[in-house]
Amino acid sequence: MDTEILSIETGYRRGVFDLTADATRFISGKGDGLLNVFVPHATAGIAVIETGAGSDDDLMDAIDAMLPRDDRHYRHRHGSPGHGADHVMPGIVAPSTVVPVIDGRLALGTWQSIVLVDPNQDNPVRQVRLSFLGG
Amino acid sequence: MDTEILSIETGYRRGVFDLTADATRFISGKGDGLLNVFVPHATAGIAVIETGAGSDDDLMDAIDAMLPRDDRHYRHRHGSPGHGADHVMPGIVAPSTVVPVIDGRLALGTWQSIVLVDPNQDNPVRQVRLSFLGG
Amino acid sequence: MDTEILSIETGYRRGVFDLTADATRFISGKGDGLLNVFVPHATAGIAVIETGAGSDDDLMDAIDAMLPRDDRHYRHRHGSPGHGADHVMPGIVAPSTVVPVIDGRLALGTWQSIVLVDPNQDNPVRQVRLSFLGG
Repeated sequence: MDTEILSIETGYRRGVFDLTADATRFISGKGDGLLNVFVPHATAGIAVIETGAGSDDDLMDAIDAMLPRDDRHYRHRHGSPGHGADHVMPGIVAPSTVVPVIDGRLALGTWQSIVLVDPNQDNPVRQVRLSFLGG
Repeated sequence: MDTEILSIETGYRRGVFDLTADATRFISGKGDGLLNVFVPHATAGIAVIETGAGSDDDLMDAIDAMLPRDDRHYRHRHGSPGHGADHVMPGIVAPSTVVPVIDGRLALGTWQSIVLVDPNQDNPVRQVRLSFLGG
Repeated sequence: MDTEILSIETGYRRGVFDLTADATRFISGKGDGLLNVFVPHATAGIAVIETGAGSDDDLMDAIDAMLPRDDRHYRHRHGSPGHGADHVMPGIVAPSTVVPVIDGRLALGTWQSIVLVDPNQDNPVRQVRLSFLGG
């Protein structure tokens, strides 16, 4: 298995961060197999959505509607307001996905991007692990 | 890795489409390994649920309750009403899953089916990629 | 592929059950690869979240808010009240995840645990399949 850790500079900003270029570079030339994208943080997720046409911000709004950032809703209360919601989010937007790779290219659809979903404004940098298993 | 693309005729219909028979055929005789089911569209997802007893339609209703089809909620606005919601859905119902395969058979539970979840009524046909990595 | 089935005694209790110790033991000494955790039940899911600081119960509350346990919402109605919601949950909290394994260790973050999410109070024991594909 080939594996690599990315450092994504989120700059304390909540939002969606596109990982597609990094993933494309990582699997370039690697043939056929499965790419796992995994974020080793308890307040972030990985998604595959369209970016750049508003859906990235729409996803953040939908998460906030589903998981209100009023800490009275949560047992887990510390850090910035809404941190309790941040810890529930990975139950809904999971920290792991798998994308097929064909002949060294991501088999994504035209409008799909692999993204880090980070609702947590308390961190300036996030790690993401890319792992490729060929076959 | 063995891989194959299915064409699923949704006929412009919103709903849940059972892929289990296609997946069963695809991995038949392939031994042990992991099956990845991936939909290369930005407005569809893959789930593993019970079908045929109402839960498939219940899932569509739950998605509509979580992601209201009133386009005032979304920055991404074009196509049919609700298309903004369609683009958020893959953040919640991801376009990728992995199912273990044992001795050429899907290791699903009795009541589990692998399904395409398609809230988008603008397409008559959807592609789904099946990929098997043995070991 | 190495594979093993765990029996998790939930004791008819709704909640989150930590699988991390079992997964750690299972992949110990197995080198690099991908671990798939899969629950072969139609009313349970797998998540990767922090446990022990309240977020496990917060996740159950969030699921109940998103999928109300009033059976008038569901076509699928039988068993205990809320069973219709139990059958929708795997569409949101999927029954499958993949975690990278490096040198026989789970590449989880400090605060991440792999958990079984079981909203269904009708079962005393749940099965979970662990599968490791090295490479």
